[in-house]
Amino acid sequence: MKVKLARDLLKANDVLAGGLRDRLGELGLLAVNLIGSPGSGKTTLLERTIGGLGARRVAVVEGDVATTLDAQRIERTGAAVVQVNTDGACHLDANMVTDAVTDLALEGVDYLFIENVGNLVCPAAWDLGEDLKVVVSSVAEGDEKPAKYPRVFREAQACVLNKTDLIPHVEFDAQRFTTEVRRLNPEAEVFLLSAREGSGIDKWLTWLETRLAAKRATR
Amino acid sequence: MKVKLARDLLKANDVLAGGLRDRLGELGLLAVNLIGSPGSGKTTLLERTIGGLGARRVAVVEGDVATTLDAQRIERTGAAVVQVNTDGACHLDANMVTDAVTDLALEGVDYLFIENVGNLVCPAAWDLGEDLKVVVSSVAEGDEKPAKYPRVFREAQACVLNKTDLIPHVEFDAQRFTTEVRRLNPEAEVFLLSAREGSGIDKWLTWLETRLAAKRATR
Repeated sequence: MKVKLARDLLKANDVLAGGLRDRLGELGLLAVNLIGSPGSGKTTLLERTIGGLGARRVAVVEGDVATTLDAQRIERTGAAVVQVNTDGACHLDANMVTDAVTDLALEGVDYLFIENVGNLVCPAAWDLGEDLKVVVSSVAEGDEKPAKYPRVFREAQACVLNKTDLIPHVEFDAQRFTTEVRRLNPEAEVFLLSAREGSGIDKWLTWLETRLAAKRATR
Repeated sequence: MKVKLARDLLKANDVLAGGLRDRLGELGLLAVNLIGSPGSGKTTLLERTIGGLGARRVAVVEGDVATTLDAQRIERTGAAVVQVNTDGACHLDANMVTDAVTDLALEGVDYLFIENVGNLVCPAAWDLGEDLKVVVSSVAEGDEKPAKYPRVFREAQACVLNKTDLIPHVEFDAQRFTTEVRRLNPEAEVFLLSAREGSGIDKWLTWLETRLAAKRATR
């Protein structure tokens, strides 16, 4: 019964997510669902990305269990932002995002970033109508994370390995991490970068622009 | 309906957890449920703790979504260990732990550590029959984590702030972190330590011994 209900909920979510994907598709924007552990650096990556995208118009849905701390940080970048407080729930779902985007003026927006609740497990199962799932992991978490939390690494189109500036201070084998991601998901792009310091960010921005152009070319 | 079923499951879990708590109580051991994000350093803390407890007998239940990597590390310490693979589930529950401990010879054991799935959200809601919940957070995750994930900090009897050796390399205000933990949970003990380097571990070990003695004194 537990499994059945979970499946029913996921099925209802997928229907909603499909509708949302159609709507976002008509707008010609690229929707990116950022998934990662608490403290993997999703918000700092967003700040750096918004700055780096320059003239692009960006909107953000910030998912958190509690507080508006991250939304306040995004607001300071000038991007449009809506906060979703899940009130204890461990992931965003398509219903929450559908509701949140009604508060965003999406006409003319190029990128919609959805920062999921900090959690490497649950968000992987929930389709939010996004074009791309991106998993964010920090070197401080350890190089065995892809093996231990495989689902999100399998589902993502890209993996950002963040906080590379800390590599000299932790035990982390970047080769082991990358090899494991590729084993789980041969198609995934892997970006090694430091969102705080900015190193490696250019390749990530170029990839986003390529994906946006590809999406618009198929309209 | 979603909420109702979640409540029913939690209620069934609480009944099972109560039975498990009675059974562990009769054995006179101290059961500790370790909860934290992926990469917060729970396994390294366990390795260091088992070493530091010297002659104490320790058993461990290792919870993971996939792999036996952590159980292999614990095995090398000489402690008895059982691995629970949740097959995608985001937390341990009392049923899993009840089943796992049947594979451990608990007579004469002093401490049972239960390392939960790496997740700062879901495990907080699930009673595992433990005496103590301990939340483990690393300085690399950022000092705002208690505010953003308040439930587990409210429920825990102690908070281990791990990886203090990284403080010079990250932006982290230990005062802000501690103040927020105390605001959420004035009774909680807070231990600043580096499980990797060993600094600060003594106070943590002393606290565990005090709690074990207190439990045995009430039998």
